[in-house]
Amino acid sequence: MVKLFTAEEVAKHSSLESCWVVLYGSVYDVTDFLPHHPGGSKAILQLAGRDATEDYDPIHPPGTLENGLRPEAKLGSVDLSTLSRSEEAPIEDGQGDAASRRLPPLDTLLNLDDIERVATRQISHKAWAYYFSAADDLISKRLNNEAYRSILLRPRIFIDVGKCETSTTLLGHGVGLPVYVSPAAAARLAHTTGEAGIAQACGKFNAIQLISTNASMTPEQIVKDAASGQVFGFQLYVQVEQSKSEALLSRINKLSHKIKFICLTLDAPAPGNREHDERASNMAATQSVTSIVQSSSTSKPPEGSGGTISIANQLFLGTDSRLTWKTTLPWLRKQTNLPIILKGIQTHEDAHLASLHAPLVQGIILSNHGGRELDTAPPAVHTLLEIRKYCPEVFTKLEVWVDGGIRRGTDVVKALCLGARGVGIGRAALWGLGAGGPEGVERTLEILKAEIETCMRLLGVTSISELGPKYVNTRAIEHLIYDGPAGLEDKQPRLWVPAKL
Amino acid sequence: MVKLFTAEEVAKHSSLESCWVVLYGSVYDVTDFLPHHPGGSKAILQLAGRDATEDYDPIHPPGTLENGLRPEAKLGSVDLSTLSRSEEAPIEDGQGDAASRRLPPLDTLLNLDDIERVATRQISHKAWAYYFSAADDLISKRLNNEAYRSILLRPRIFIDVGKCETSTTLLGHGVGLPVYVSPAAAARLAHTTGEAGIAQACGKFNAIQLISTNASMTPEQIVKDAASGQVFGFQLYVQVEQSKSEALLSRINKLSHKIKFICLTLDAPAPGNREHDERASNMAATQSVTSIVQSSSTSKPPEGSGGTISIANQLFLGTDSRLTWKTTLPWLRKQTNLPIILKGIQTHEDAHLASLHAPLVQGIILSNHGGRELDTAPPAVHTLLEIRKYCPEVFTKLEVWVDGGIRRGTDVVKALCLGARGVGIGRAALWGLGAGGPEGVERTLEILKAEIETCMRLLGVTSISELGPKYVNTRAIEHLIYDGPAGLEDKQPRLWVPAKL
Amino acid sequence: MVKLFTAEEVAKHSSLESCWVVLYGSVYDVTDFLPHHPGGSKAILQLAGRDATEDYDPIHPPGTLENGLRPEAKLGSVDLSTLSRSEEAPIEDGQGDAASRRLPPLDTLLNLDDIERVATRQISHKAWAYYFSAADDLISKRLNNEAYRSILLRPRIFIDVGKCETSTTLLGHGVGLPVYVSPAAAARLAHTTGEAGIAQACGKFNAIQLISTNASMTPEQIVKDAASGQVFGFQLYVQVEQSKSEALLSRINKLSHKIKFICLTLDAPAPGNREHDERASNMAATQSVTSIVQSSSTSKPPEGSGGTISIANQLFLGTDSRLTWKTTLPWLRKQTNLPIILKGIQTHEDAHLASLHAPLVQGIILSNHGGRELDTAPPAVHTLLEIRKYCPEVFTKLEVWVDGGIRRGTDVVKALCLGARGVGIGRAALWGLGAGGPEGVERTLEILKAEIETCMRLLGVTSISELGPKYVNTRAIEHLIYDGPAGLEDKQPRLWVPAKL
Amino acid sequence: MVKLFTAEEVAKHSSLESCWVVLYGSVYDVTDFLPHHPGGSKAILQLAGRDATEDYDPIHPPGTLENGLRPEAKLGSVDLSTLSRSEEAPIEDGQGDAASRRLPPLDTLLNLDDIERVATRQISHKAWAYYFSAADDLISKRLNNEAYRSILLRPRIFIDVGKCETSTTLLGHGVGLPVYVSPAAAARLAHTTGEAGIAQACGKFNAIQLISTNASMTPEQIVKDAASGQVFGFQLYVQVEQSKSEALLSRINKLSHKIKFICLTLDAPAPGNREHDERASNMAATQSVTSIVQSSSTSKPPEGSGGTISIANQLFLGTDSRLTWKTTLPWLRKQTNLPIILKGIQTHEDAHLASLHAPLVQGIILSNHGGRELDTAPPAVHTLLEIRKYCPEVFTKLEVWVDGGIRRGTDVVKALCLGARGVGIGRAALWGLGAGGPEGVERTLEILKAEIETCMRLLGVTSISELGPKYVNTRAIEHLIYDGPAGLEDKQPRLWVPAKL
Repeated sequence: MVKLFTAEEVAKHSSLESCWVVLYGSVYDVTDFLPHHPGGSKAILQLAGRDATEDYDPIHPPGTLENGLRPEAKLGSVDLSTLSRSEEAPIEDGQGDAASRRLPPLDTLLNLDDIERVATRQISHKAWAYYFSAADDLISKRLNNEAYRSILLRPRIFIDVGKCETSTTLLGHGVGLPVYVSPAAAARLAHTTGEAGIAQACGKFNAIQLISTNASMTPEQIVKDAASGQVFGFQLYVQVEQSKSEALLSRINKLSHKIKFICLTLDAPAPGNREHDERASNMAATQSVTSIVQSSSTSKPPEGSGGTISIANQLFLGTDSRLTWKTTLPWLRKQTNLPIILKGIQTHEDAHLASLHAPLVQGIILSNHGGRELDTAPPAVHTLLEIRKYCPEVFTKLEVWVDGGIRRGTDVVKALCLGARGVGIGRAALWGLGAGGPEGVERTLEILKAEIETCMRLLGVTSISELGPKYVNTRAIEHLIYDGPAGLEDKQPRLWVPAKL
Repeated sequence: MVKLFTAEEVAKHSSLESCWVVLYGSVYDVTDFLPHHPGGSKAILQLAGRDATEDYDPIHPPGTLENGLRPEAKLGSVDLSTLSRSEEAPIEDGQGDAASRRLPPLDTLLNLDDIERVATRQISHKAWAYYFSAADDLISKRLNNEAYRSILLRPRIFIDVGKCETSTTLLGHGVGLPVYVSPAAAARLAHTTGEAGIAQACGKFNAIQLISTNASMTPEQIVKDAASGQVFGFQLYVQVEQSKSEALLSRINKLSHKIKFICLTLDAPAPGNREHDERASNMAATQSVTSIVQSSSTSKPPEGSGGTISIANQLFLGTDSRLTWKTTLPWLRKQTNLPIILKGIQTHEDAHLASLHAPLVQGIILSNHGGRELDTAPPAVHTLLEIRKYCPEVFTKLEVWVDGGIRRGTDVVKALCLGARGVGIGRAALWGLGAGGPEGVERTLEILKAEIETCMRLLGVTSISELGPKYVNTRAIEHLIYDGPAGLEDKQPRLWVPAKL
Repeated sequence: MVKLFTAEEVAKHSSLESCWVVLYGSVYDVTDFLPHHPGGSKAILQLAGRDATEDYDPIHPPGTLENGLRPEAKLGSVDLSTLSRSEEAPIEDGQGDAASRRLPPLDTLLNLDDIERVATRQISHKAWAYYFSAADDLISKRLNNEAYRSILLRPRIFIDVGKCETSTTLLGHGVGLPVYVSPAAAARLAHTTGEAGIAQACGKFNAIQLISTNASMTPEQIVKDAASGQVFGFQLYVQVEQSKSEALLSRINKLSHKIKFICLTLDAPAPGNREHDERASNMAATQSVTSIVQSSSTSKPPEGSGGTISIANQLFLGTDSRLTWKTTLPWLRKQTNLPIILKGIQTHEDAHLASLHAPLVQGIILSNHGGRELDTAPPAVHTLLEIRKYCPEVFTKLEVWVDGGIRRGTDVVKALCLGARGVGIGRAALWGLGAGGPEGVERTLEILKAEIETCMRLLGVTSISELGPKYVNTRAIEHLIYDGPAGLEDKQPRLWVPAKL
Repeated sequence: MVKLFTAEEVAKHSSLESCWVVLYGSVYDVTDFLPHHPGGSKAILQLAGRDATEDYDPIHPPGTLENGLRPEAKLGSVDLSTLSRSEEAPIEDGQGDAASRRLPPLDTLLNLDDIERVATRQISHKAWAYYFSAADDLISKRLNNEAYRSILLRPRIFIDVGKCETSTTLLGHGVGLPVYVSPAAAARLAHTTGEAGIAQACGKFNAIQLISTNASMTPEQIVKDAASGQVFGFQLYVQVEQSKSEALLSRINKLSHKIKFICLTLDAPAPGNREHDERASNMAATQSVTSIVQSSSTSKPPEGSGGTISIANQLFLGTDSRLTWKTTLPWLRKQTNLPIILKGIQTHEDAHLASLHAPLVQGIILSNHGGRELDTAPPAVHTLLEIRKYCPEVFTKLEVWVDGGIRRGTDVVKALCLGARGVGIGRAALWGLGAGGPEGVERTLEILKAEIETCMRLLGVTSISELGPKYVNTRAIEHLIYDGPAGLEDKQPRLWVPAKL
């Protein structure tokens, strides 16, 4: 016999001393678990004493609960009739059936901006804020795209472009187009199919998908229904508790028929200051606090900014900020034989250093984390030009991928012309998922592929390998590329290595 | 005895299996013709089962129907009383008599922006969208004009400018001003006089008009009432079915007392991504589908984006994207003895290549197709500066014309100062036509001519031949001109020829 | 006995064949005068058959009527009771007593923008349009000011600035500040005191005023009440009928105790395209045509743009556009012994040429006519930098003055730092006059003088002669300064002289 | 027995001949004091005849009244019931309890813009205008921030950033973060705790505060409750009556256990033209004049702009504008043994000159006075780059601090990378005070500290001393840095010294 609790009873347990939550209709006592939560006790306390399912579900893969709690922590069930459903009413949530019926057909969405616009109306405010947000004043986020826009193309004429092919290879794997899906957390905030929905769309286009450590589904779930020959990468945030990462990598190794490489993210050793995300969390907290049962005297949120913790900060907690070239790479090699690529290179110096680690390292991703970490960090295309200028041999030693700011097929082609081999989309895939589930992601990839083809044809190019710097005019941004430290004395930009290293 | 059909009967035939349309009051069975339509079967299917006259008429020259269909395809007439005229009511159409009466007198329109504004209110939304649209985010369309605006003029003083003359020669033909009308399709969308209306205005100013392969009137009709000595060019899109192009050129040869040269368009080997045009088509399709008779169960539009096809894409279908220097030029020479100019040069390399084909090729048009093909392609004035920088001898071997972004007489004068001999206006002529028919085009040319004269006088110049680079300061854009591929190794921009060629 | 006419009778005479106008209550038959009007017959015809006083008065100095017409042309008086005063109701005219009472006190107007704002509300729409307007798209007008704004100042510290003096000399005449009032037409459109009102304010500040050929008062009137020692210049537009200009100069010679130099304007050999001015004229014409008595069947305005003629075009008519270095300067020297300065230099080449004519020519004014002539002509400060770069000796041979775009004392100081000796304000003085009559102009000069002083003190400078290029950082515009014709071959910017000369 | 006056009686004494004011309920006859007021007689006259407490209080430290007036000047008390409280109703004042309750909790304010927004709503319009205002068109104010925003950061990866420390030293004093609070007047306009409230917050973060000569509290009051080890500087405006400054410095010398250095401000030898401040004063004056008792015929405000004097101008009066390197530094050394730093250096030349005065001078502050003095003066970061370019040895001889435009932790880090040792915030601290008193300033410092830490971590840096020019890309502004006077002849920017010196 399962014990039945009323919402009011649960609400009394919302403190460090006694902390209960409702998840999927069951009541759990998580008091003992608080100090062990990878996302910090605060993340739980702000949901304490009430139904936490809506907050918990889209950012935790299945099994998380079972792995974290002892069986006796499950106290019983909540009397559903006592739960006030209004307490967590999403602010701008249109994810109902009625709203879906009003959505325009996917094929009337003509570009990635259209898709973002529809997704913005469709998903919850909190999800939107998490996806949309970037560091500080969104300067890098904006620059990421504007840098591409200011590059001009150089179309050649009188060339037979009757046939045009967007296929290429990434790390030796044949792909249908040079675009891959960047690792991103919490896809289930956009759509119930989550990261598996993205995988389904990637399968259709033979596009690579990188699976985030913070995915809202397990790697096993995500790759389960993969198309034959479909390729995945696994993106790793090393945990402070290294053993957890080792266990995770061991699971990945078992999926090596699908997951073909490891991508180690290095551009996020601390959480970025993402104010949209934070404001959305504050807003939600204010709402829920307001609606909490009156008798619950301890329901006041604990210390800290607004008493809440943003999605980004929850996901970051537990991540190790002490990785180094010397210690982390050898450790990682011991855990897995999969090829390794490093994500988050933002200077030519680090690109050069990475190239010194080939072939242990097989590729790098030039990325400022979608502008979500350090505001005014350079766009990937700046770093691409820095490398061309100071250490072009990197392109021959490593595959260079880029991400950030891609909104058009021309953006992709420009990156390829400048030496990139793969081009990642992050938010774009999530907006696609939000706008129409797996079919929305398909539409996103379909648009990009068509735009890439159009661009190639109009450049007089019919295969990816023909693309090169002669097809682009980068003068509008060349004068912004780093050329050494400011000042008279020491303009020696090439290959400087920080003293600390 | 002509058979009479009701609209409802016609509506039953709206599928691939049985496809009828009403044109000019007659009912046609076009089922067999579907695979042979140069614009693709989809373009017909979206109009199947109903009166297609309004869509068909302004983009098909007379005779198209008769040439395309066997006599027995004409089944009879439609019972006009059964046609619901509201089904295709234009969205913002003000082309009625009432609206015309409200239009401001043409001589109160002081500049080309005024004329565009009036035309925008006057013509149908679909026509506006087709004319206004450009590729992707309209960046090249905007740059086309802004590039001119950022060039400064250098007025010289104390020079007798009592008399000032805008006449010049283009390909040896005396013209009243250095401005010509670029080839443009579907002029009858703007005004019933169509391309012939433009011809009438050009006659008054002794300005050259280029006739598009996709004109909505036949070349014969357009040149019929030409003024004595009036000169035309014929713009060619080579068709996949080359015999069609050969037949067309043979007709042009017969008009060589009026049509004095061939302009081969090379900047559109694939249709550009023009979203305004596409959205307008989607919108129209939605409207017509809604109003189709209920019983017509097969009226659902077929596959593809929105189930519709934009005007631009219809016009493109059948165009050959496999033209090359080696095969196309000799073929073209065989078809005609008329002088040849190449339209769509966007790099100094291709300008150089074209100059190697003189005197077979007598001129080039620097053009990015009004920004309608590849977004972020360079404005013509950039290419002009590239040529000045890397292969100035081109100006002595070929006539160099430019188009795109002209909104003021100063724009024209700047292009001429930098080496252009002729300057094309495309949309501007269509807006003129839309704003006031032939008189609207006249007003457009009148304004430009007056502005050119004013500009010349204020520069201290009284004839076109005096204009030169010393009258302009291009430093605001010089730093944007291509100077070779980005990177250290190989800054050798001069005269590179693509490997594929 | 004076004959009395009704408005209706007058209205019948509104054609080329019989043209009457009412001026100051009298009826004139101006039919015979039409071909002799310096402003063209059109300017009269658009006012034919009605009371033209409001249009005529503020742009014609007294005596114009008497000099132009034979005595018998005066037919009699108009019956005032039959005139409909509403027919010429100004569009946004606030020049009544009521409006004046609502005006803010002048000392709450803190800068030149405040004054323009008040004047804009205060004067008639037509006057505003004439003053505000500039060529085409107002690009040069905007650049004139923005060029100053992008120059940075370089304040030096720890300098005794207890005393600070703005006085200097212009052409050897001591002045209270380096700012002079540029020649401008039609000041009586702003205020009944007209150019004499400006003179009154200049007297208070010992500032030089240039009197325009097109002033709305005679030179004699303007200088009549000048302060002791107050200095004027006379700006000359040479007339096609040279004898008129000779007669005018002979009058000026007689005023040489006040008028100390001649300024020959060279930047306006043709009227600029000023659309605000033109639209205001069209609008007024539409109103008056509408209100004309119905029986007047010939009241339709004649040929041309809107049937009307703008103020600028009226003023231009009769001006000679055939002036040259070789013929005009010697002719002018014969007419007067006053020092000559040339206005409208816009290139270093012409500055150099002018310097070759020293000492016949004693100064030049770098000017693009307030952006009112050729749009995208360079700001004076660009020309100043061109001269510094290519022919700095000009500064030692001639006084260099500048005008255009001055809105702050810092703008004045920057021009002086770069070599200008005098700095002209044109519109600013007219806005001052419109905002508060002579006291408004005083407030304008008071603000500028205070801002110049503040700027000097904060630069660590206490007299005008200390100012120099070391106090400004012009890098934001230096890269825009002409450096020779675009292209590889002939970068030889220095001292090129047009072939025609 | 205290004599009691009605407001009407007081109102009669509002002229130069007899001037009474009400302060803190008492009536004073200040007629004799008028010529001795450091802020000028005008500042008093505009408040004459009425209750001046609200204007007087927040800009005068306690004791001012007692020091300035003879005892017999105190005539008695005002009959409070006769005072109309509405006469000085603040324009947008929300400083009431009700308003405070509506304020968002401080921890939901996520950045300095949030804090400014809340403070703007919270404080009086006059206070807002005084703080917000800057010279002329606010160009330098805007540039101050934009210059930082256009500098890009260069994050290095794979570096252990587990521990990160923002502490550093300024003039040898250990501080918790490199940010100090700039000297600013009139803090009590923002909050009753005034400058002492700022001190309280600085104590929490071990941040240095500079005390302004124009502070609204005495130095003794401000430092009274300082935390143990808390360090202050004293900012000096030298008075025309030098003995006053000497007396003040003698008081400062007695506080040398807390006040550790003297900061001599040199960028304000004349008051800047701050129009927001001036308009707010005019507005207040209009209000009070309107409400003055009717019988008071002499109540018209005296001469000058709007009859009022802005806060900035009141504070400036009495300040000596005749300071020089030769006379002022030796005099200052005689008055105090405290280390001296010079504030307001804006050129590399003056930085060089200052370095020649080491060790008498121990530091300089690159500052344009928050854009409040000379509009278009260079941002501090420009001067920093000028020094790096032309006289980098300055950094070794002096500590270089900067202020102006700081809104983000990244701004601070960029300044440090380019050689600054300390970074001042002025308005930001006042907005903090206005938004929440001492806790608001704490929140401001808390945000900055967190943002600095995040930025350092993401750059791969863990201590302030590691920061250097290799972490920033300044190319977006380098092309704007002064490189010598414009013109061909004398590009010798290095170390030019003005002739006058």
